[in-house]
Amino acid sequence: MYVSSPGQPAAARVFPIEQLIDFITRAYVAAGMPPADARSTAELMIEADLLGSDAHGIFRLPMYIKRVRSGGFNRQPNIRIERETASTALIDGDNAMGHLVVRKAAETAIAKAKATGVAWVGLHHGNHAGAGAVYARMPLAHGMVGIYGAVGSANHLPPWGGIEMLLSTNPLAIAVPALEEPPVVLDMATTVASYGKIKARAQRGEMMPEGWMMGFDGKPLLDPKRSGEGFLMPIGGHKGYGLALMIGLLGGTLNGAAMGRDVVDFNADSSSVTNTGQCMIAVDLAAFGDPTEIRRNVDRVAREMRSAARMPGADRIRVPGEESHRRREQHLTHGLTLPAPLLDILARLADELAIAPLT
Amino acid sequence: MYVSSPGQPAAARVFPIEQLIDFITRAYVAAGMPPADARSTAELMIEADLLGSDAHGIFRLPMYIKRVRSGGFNRQPNIRIERETASTALIDGDNAMGHLVVRKAAETAIAKAKATGVAWVGLHHGNHAGAGAVYARMPLAHGMVGIYGAVGSANHLPPWGGIEMLLSTNPLAIAVPALEEPPVVLDMATTVASYGKIKARAQRGEMMPEGWMMGFDGKPLLDPKRSGEGFLMPIGGHKGYGLALMIGLLGGTLNGAAMGRDVVDFNADSSSVTNTGQCMIAVDLAAFGDPTEIRRNVDRVAREMRSAARMPGADRIRVPGEESHRRREQHLTHGLTLPAPLLDILARLADELAIAPLT
Repeated sequence: MYVSSPGQPAAARVFPIEQLIDFITRAYVAAGMPPADARSTAELMIEADLLGSDAHGIFRLPMYIKRVRSGGFNRQPNIRIERETASTALIDGDNAMGHLVVRKAAETAIAKAKATGVAWVGLHHGNHAGAGAVYARMPLAHGMVGIYGAVGSANHLPPWGGIEMLLSTNPLAIAVPALEEPPVVLDMATTVASYGKIKARAQRGEMMPEGWMMGFDGKPLLDPKRSGEGFLMPIGGHKGYGLALMIGLLGGTLNGAAMGRDVVDFNADSSSVTNTGQCMIAVDLAAFGDPTEIRRNVDRVAREMRSAARMPGADRIRVPGEESHRRREQHLTHGLTLPAPLLDILARLADELAIAPLT
Repeated sequence: MYVSSPGQPAAARVFPIEQLIDFITRAYVAAGMPPADARSTAELMIEADLLGSDAHGIFRLPMYIKRVRSGGFNRQPNIRIERETASTALIDGDNAMGHLVVRKAAETAIAKAKATGVAWVGLHHGNHAGAGAVYARMPLAHGMVGIYGAVGSANHLPPWGGIEMLLSTNPLAIAVPALEEPPVVLDMATTVASYGKIKARAQRGEMMPEGWMMGFDGKPLLDPKRSGEGFLMPIGGHKGYGLALMIGLLGGTLNGAAMGRDVVDFNADSSSVTNTGQCMIAVDLAAFGDPTEIRRNVDRVAREMRSAARMPGADRIRVPGEESHRRREQHLTHGLTLPAPLLDILARLADELAIAPLT
């Protein structure tokens, strides 16, 4: 059994995947979620860890559990298709755990795209759902492209020229299947740097490069300890603002979900209903040509990028998604390493919930 | 009649829209295009001018005419749906003028989205089609969102870490209808600056800010006169590279169109078949809720952005598309101003084609 004691320095440890899924499942069940929903959420969270999106995996468990326990999530939701056409659906998430709602949207999009070639499924009354790549990748196994867009769960970005935080770093994830190559998967927020990166610089006492943050005075902000005096820079300045706005309109406003001033800060408020909106698109390769030939051409393009002449000092050129694909394979074989501070937090959580800890 | 003579300095002149459309139509007919195709292309080119995308309007006529005359375009194309499902189509552009092929894709997407809520139409054997916003805006009149993605017509961008130009600045345009507000329309390339902006700096003898271009040595390139020694920076560094790659896979590879090394430089080569790929998506608001209510919420979000607290020195906050909407209204009423050097070029073109010049 894992016990952290002050006398003995804690160490990172490696866990088999199934053990982590089991732990998360037990935590949610203890917090009042039905076992099947608890298990699904656990799998989707660990999928983020597998892909290397640590900040969206088991790391989030204490925060999610807090929200479940304080009534911020509906523990007995009726996630349902509220409205549909041959190739679209609007899903009412009934304020369920966000992962469950987006999974339903992805499954619905895949089923409809099988029948009509493409499907666009929007949702409202959802919640924070973790890593976009987890959902964008779901159509891959069906020979489809997956696209995911979301209204983020806290406003960190002003419109370009403004200082009022009206937008989130609304993420976009796009996954395209290849043949022999890993799928090409882009999962990006619309800001140059993430708050995680900035916090890490602050901890190391390092300055930030110009272009990561801008002060409310319109000047570059370089000291990460002063991050409260400015905002994350959108990629390409006004372009990133525009992209965050459009993703927000498509993921939020089109679905009757929160967008702009009515976005609830999910991190600061664990009980208000967020009415988070997301959208999922699935596109069947077979609608556009011979799927094998299309995949072979995706391979060719990926290999062209990787083998391009390099800049001095560049050790390699990456194709989006290849690194997370490699990590996923490694983690499935060798397990996931959890750092000591996280193990401490999870041990305390197990104690609070009166469940067996990770052993 | 407009005549440029060396003794008398040329001046910019204002023309009614219909006169410009008529001139372009006559030019294409003289170059061998059927009158209906010539007229459609003229309207789509002038639509770019109306929206303020001067670089994609009548300015391009000499280059397009050169390609028509040298056999780079098929003057008698059979633009047809090669493959379709209820909500998708793949269009074979038969190497027609690009504008005609994308218009066909947009019309097909609108018709299919009326029936099934959403449609995704890809095309191959197309060509350069000008401003993406022209096509993304087409579904607006039908109460739909429009999305346009394209493989650009020349590779200007290496993959991140590389120095080999394997990607174009693949543009993305998204248009969302509002109620009383102008539609929200984003039309962006995936690089921070355009070559047009860089040429303008070089002409004025000014340096570029850091972040516009990077040298092949991996260092910031600040002198616009040395632009041949580096490349345009993608927005957000590796993120913009990823976005350009994904738009290229969706607009090109999915449709069996050129992408990566096989992209033909449209500017340098006026006779090779480009096999350009583009895609159009149309999404019916009515599939997701009461269209009026959705549009009202788009209004609200647009107004929130515009009225956000401003940074010192920022005179206003723009919502993407409002400026081009305003210009379009003004130009429709007051006509379009063509600068003197362009008038000279068009006068010479009229002479070459033996058609009546702009008067």
